[in-house]
Amino acid sequence: MKLVFLGSGGSWPSKERNLSSVALKMNGEIILFDCAEGTQRQLFQSSLNFMHVDKILISHFHGDHFLGIPGLIQSMYLNDRTKPLHIFGPKGTTKIVGGILTLGYFSPTFEILTQDLNDGDEVSFEEYTLKVRTADHDIPALAYCIEEHQRKGKFHPEKALALGIEEGPLFRKLQNGHSVQVGDRIVKPEDVMGKPRKGRKIVYSGDTRPSKTIEDLAKNCDVLVHDATLSDDLEEKAKKYGHSSAAQAANIAKRSKAKVLFLTHISPRYDDAQLLEDEAKKIFKYSFVAADFLEYEIKLP
Amino acid sequence: MKLVFLGSGGSWPSKERNLSSVALKMNGEIILFDCAEGTQRQLFQSSLNFMHVDKILISHFHGDHFLGIPGLIQSMYLNDRTKPLHIFGPKGTTKIVGGILTLGYFSPTFEILTQDLNDGDEVSFEEYTLKVRTADHDIPALAYCIEEHQRKGKFHPEKALALGIEEGPLFRKLQNGHSVQVGDRIVKPEDVMGKPRKGRKIVYSGDTRPSKTIEDLAKNCDVLVHDATLSDDLEEKAKKYGHSSAAQAANIAKRSKAKVLFLTHISPRYDDAQLLEDEAKKIFKYSFVAADFLEYEIKLP
Repeated sequence: MKLVFLGSGGSWPSKERNLSSVALKMNGEIILFDCAEGTQRQLFQSSLNFMHVDKILISHFHGDHFLGIPGLIQSMYLNDRTKPLHIFGPKGTTKIVGGILTLGYFSPTFEILTQDLNDGDEVSFEEYTLKVRTADHDIPALAYCIEEHQRKGKFHPEKALALGIEEGPLFRKLQNGHSVQVGDRIVKPEDVMGKPRKGRKIVYSGDTRPSKTIEDLAKNCDVLVHDATLSDDLEEKAKKYGHSSAAQAANIAKRSKAKVLFLTHISPRYDDAQLLEDEAKKIFKYSFVAADFLEYEIKLP
Repeated sequence: MKLVFLGSGGSWPSKERNLSSVALKMNGEIILFDCAEGTQRQLFQSSLNFMHVDKILISHFHGDHFLGIPGLIQSMYLNDRTKPLHIFGPKGTTKIVGGILTLGYFSPTFEILTQDLNDGDEVSFEEYTLKVRTADHDIPALAYCIEEHQRKGKFHPEKALALGIEEGPLFRKLQNGHSVQVGDRIVKPEDVMGKPRKGRKIVYSGDTRPSKTIEDLAKNCDVLVHDATLSDDLEEKAKKYGHSSAAQAANIAKRSKAKVLFLTHISPRYDDAQLLEDEAKKIFKYSFVAADFLEYEIKLP
């Protein structure tokens, strides 16, 4: 499972940063948090395959977060996509995406499934749950949490071998949660497997002022990707426009006990965003400024 | 006056090429031929100032030619633009641009003036005329010609000095087309200036099959920027989808007596487009494959 930052800038693009999009790659599927203009090109320039994007989660409908949708859909169409694409977002998503699909001369040959989400919604998928909370921005905006389902414990082959089970089909049976018989003895999965393991948890704030709601959503997460548009000296400006400073993002990470914080939606005013990272690190050691094409492997606990 | 290629690829972007957009910079104003997704980022990465874009000429409404409009407008708005932006295109332009402007939460604070153009239209501006012809594509599509007005002849200071005129206000008077009196003698502008000079002429084909109409439009042009999506062996495919091969573009350039040809809308199938340039050069020596950020100075004749 890895995060790939496709665009780490806010408002308008710069030489160094495209606008908001972060890809989460898990088991062959790619989930995009936001999809700004130019995201498809960033995908082409990254290690990812744009055809594997199955879900797009839009935080809100400011242009620097969603204008990459029509181009991405068109390129998927030109590359013969057949499987559906899911687009989730706040109130208005279905209407806005509907509008996007009528622009120009184009109708996709695969299904575009849209869903408007509300505060508190949880959408369960095969391997994870999407949890949704309201962000504190100046238009309807959401923060997202992807939480993997609890995973099986680790299989200990040496324990199985010690119990007289040979490597092969019986190993797999145990791994899949079934007991097996060896001679007179019944061996249960728990005899050869560790305790069930917590799934990984990734939280994306979208554009937001510091928010207790997002702090709660991010509780004990493995990665928090948080708005850090401005430096501390511009906290008032950040507040006015519905954003956070680097220090505010770090405080959320600290209080939520996140493992790692990535600062994103960096204002184009910063040619060098090291300042933001420095400010955040004073509060929360594991703070990093996101950069376009930065990849972060989210290890199993 | 210079051309700056902002996107030289067709259909979907690649690592090397963004999608269609070519900027013409003249006297502080920038005219964009097409404005694909990502054009604003390309502008930021080029030598040009995106705030100086005053006109956008859309060839047709396939996604790889116009989806950069909303993001560009939004960034102009965020950077406090007040002067109007003109958008020209084929039938449907006003409606489509109107649709673009209602996407998401955004209304520009400057005027967006749109105009639907038809085959044969000529729009005259202070320093040039925009000439419009139909291209041969599979949806309504236009080719554009920017033709500078005839320019005054060259001023020869040595001739003026020989006639007893001193450098200063009288020089400017003559340069501005007025006669001046020196002693008993009337000196006319034509006594000290060369013949009026032809303006420069730039032609942009947009997506098109080879077309006699465009060949005529490009007659004696200084630069022809022409669709050359595919190589010669794929001419049938090019025809089917409304495009030209490199050789077909070169034939148009040759017959129209263009000075220089730039091949553009290069298919993403070509990692190296040298093949296309080689094919074109066999027919028309001054053929070049466009590359993103390539700049071409269009000298005065």
